[in-house]
Amino acid sequence: MADIFERLIKHYGPIGQHRDRAHGYFAFPKLEGEIGSRMKFRGKEMIVWSLNNYLGLANHPAIRKVDADAAAEFGMALPMGARMMSGNSNYHEQLEKELAEFEGKEDSILLNFGYQGIMSAIDAICGRHDVIVYDAESHACIIDGLRLHPGHRYVYKHNDIEDLEKQLERATALIEKQGSGGILVITEGVFGMAGDQGKLKETVDLKSKYEFRLLVDDAHGFGTLGDTGAGAGEAQGCQDGIDLYFSTFAKSMASIGAFIAGPRVIIDYIRYNVRSQIFAKSLPMPIVVGNLKRLDMLRTMPEMRAKLWENALKLQQGLKDRGFDIGSTNSVVTPVYMKGGVEEATAMVMDLRENYGIFCSIVVYPVIPKGHIIYRLIPTAAHSDEDIQRTLTAFSETKAKLDAGAYKVEAIPDMAESR
Amino acid sequence: MADIFERLIKHYGPIGQHRDRAHGYFAFPKLEGEIGSRMKFRGKEMIVWSLNNYLGLANHPAIRKVDADAAAEFGMALPMGARMMSGNSNYHEQLEKELAEFEGKEDSILLNFGYQGIMSAIDAICGRHDVIVYDAESHACIIDGLRLHPGHRYVYKHNDIEDLEKQLERATALIEKQGSGGILVITEGVFGMAGDQGKLKETVDLKSKYEFRLLVDDAHGFGTLGDTGAGAGEAQGCQDGIDLYFSTFAKSMASIGAFIAGPRVIIDYIRYNVRSQIFAKSLPMPIVVGNLKRLDMLRTMPEMRAKLWENALKLQQGLKDRGFDIGSTNSVVTPVYMKGGVEEATAMVMDLRENYGIFCSIVVYPVIPKGHIIYRLIPTAAHSDEDIQRTLTAFSETKAKLDAGAYKVEAIPDMAESR
Repeated sequence: MADIFERLIKHYGPIGQHRDRAHGYFAFPKLEGEIGSRMKFRGKEMIVWSLNNYLGLANHPAIRKVDADAAAEFGMALPMGARMMSGNSNYHEQLEKELAEFEGKEDSILLNFGYQGIMSAIDAICGRHDVIVYDAESHACIIDGLRLHPGHRYVYKHNDIEDLEKQLERATALIEKQGSGGILVITEGVFGMAGDQGKLKETVDLKSKYEFRLLVDDAHGFGTLGDTGAGAGEAQGCQDGIDLYFSTFAKSMASIGAFIAGPRVIIDYIRYNVRSQIFAKSLPMPIVVGNLKRLDMLRTMPEMRAKLWENALKLQQGLKDRGFDIGSTNSVVTPVYMKGGVEEATAMVMDLRENYGIFCSIVVYPVIPKGHIIYRLIPTAAHSDEDIQRTLTAFSETKAKLDAGAYKVEAIPDMAESR
Repeated sequence: MADIFERLIKHYGPIGQHRDRAHGYFAFPKLEGEIGSRMKFRGKEMIVWSLNNYLGLANHPAIRKVDADAAAEFGMALPMGARMMSGNSNYHEQLEKELAEFEGKEDSILLNFGYQGIMSAIDAICGRHDVIVYDAESHACIIDGLRLHPGHRYVYKHNDIEDLEKQLERATALIEKQGSGGILVITEGVFGMAGDQGKLKETVDLKSKYEFRLLVDDAHGFGTLGDTGAGAGEAQGCQDGIDLYFSTFAKSMASIGAFIAGPRVIIDYIRYNVRSQIFAKSLPMPIVVGNLKRLDMLRTMPEMRAKLWENALKLQQGLKDRGFDIGSTNSVVTPVYMKGGVEEATAMVMDLRENYGIFCSIVVYPVIPKGHIIYRLIPTAAHSDEDIQRTLTAFSETKAKLDAGAYKVEAIPDMAESR
């Protein structure tokens, strides 16, 4: 007979195992001050590349004003209860209406949090006989949604349309054998780690050969892609083929919550059957009112998106010109691929932070294969030309040190804060 | 080959099937104005019994001030990113420290939303060989957590300690057979529908016979029960036997978010391994700062809890004196059990709203067996004596009408709002 707790503390997990030396520095760092391209970390000013504040809305004076005014007018408690019971309001419905219009859909439903929202929506939509076909690099919230699904799920290789077709064939055959059930394909508008857009156009085109519905998580595409900022579907000219369009408010909108847009009858079905919304409190009013203003600015101020792309392309071109491998991103998400061990990666991150004042996130083993390092830079409309130039210089210099073996250290240094 | 969407619109679910006549009235109603015992519904003032604003904090001037000030100081966007990546702050850590101290635990972890928080925590803690033993009436968020669990789960009859013991025996035998794994028991401090406290004391006592860990969801007990308001564990004198104590901020705290308190090493394990927190944005700063103030008031103003209980006992005694069946509640949650069909229940709710100005929630078939109606009244510290007396009178009069068959109507009337 084993004690669950005793087992847990033997293996703290991929990141947790380093917590004694990493807590507060490599994990759970505190960025202080107003959100922008420059923030404080442990008292020092940093150029920050870790925040999905794509359009720079987080600290825009008009947003700060609406956030302050809405909280003063409504308080953070209103409304109380789940939407269905006692947590509904005209503002919630107005935001749903405007989001649907913006995405070219009939209706939308607000979600009190994106993670539980999409997970629970997948659960609400799919029955035991339905088959879910999904991209291998889908976000954790989608995977958790799949885990709730009692039926079959077929994964296809990341962005591999040939393999998607193979899985659609398998799914179709299974459903025909079962005599019931349908297919839901799930992918993303932009994959947040590598920055490559999901092949939505090619996926939608498969509807002429296979019968399925398509759910797209466009967390990173919403507000950043397409002529009007409506996202990856708009950018690829296939928005109509996306049956259910999901995005969080946690990125371009610099808020919390999320939504799903689609046909009126299906959104209504979700509204009345999605567990994480029926059994949990609705979004606070200041968040809803704040998101109405954010959506308005996102629609009416295309110059923010233009600035974001100007910065992103400058950063990406600068990295490529300096010989860096930024993979196949076709969004503003900018990964930088390098080779090195976990200890080297951490030493390089420390050099970047301590000596260059550059704060960015890294991904290492065991999240990706041993010997690989991914830096993930998130450009925003709030970055300046100087931010970009200083960062390019810092990357050139630290990369030279990495290649020269200067970061070969014995172990991750103890950078933890006392707690 | 079936289309998922076509299947969905054939059966809109237990509540959704009535949406054409019920939307905006019986489902998704809008309570307008400031949160309190009197709010507006479709333009009329109602005495409201549907909000879990137990301590009356939602609209307390000190809370309205801190909510407004924090939103003005920080905006609603700060911090951005998950706690582990870029969303940490001193305020988040301070709130975790104070919650842990308040609950008599070593540490606590903030959760960006209660539903996904507890669900994902169950997933983080339990491995394939662990067995979860849980109360049959556990909240939807716990059930969804169980659904993520790849191992065995044994349900015990609601609050039935004998059956719990039987399931613990089964679980122990299975684990011994497997040669690995442990047991997690999950129950609630207060069951939100019937208002009966979970038998925590008796459950903890079973630790002398069986080896298990105990997770308690005390959403309705936190702030309302115990000498200091620390909840059902404190009230029953067994807080130390609760290994992991969970509560949402959506009820007594009149906010959003949640926390889990427990031993430092286990909370740290959860912190580094709970998917819905690692892969989703942390709680906005104004919510964290607002919750610090709410916790402070909850601790230092026991008169709010005293007033809540004064109101609850007055309401409950009044109902009992008038011959109503309020079941076995031993919390402030006040159910009123009646007999009648769905149509009668809705007609009675309409009479209460339209002619008596009383707004409360009902539960009917298919959530509970056919022919039964449960009214659920949530008293708060913000209710007045007049609110209670008017409600008692209204219940007496409408119950007499119900018994006389006055609510026997053909169908649910069309009360939907245009949309």
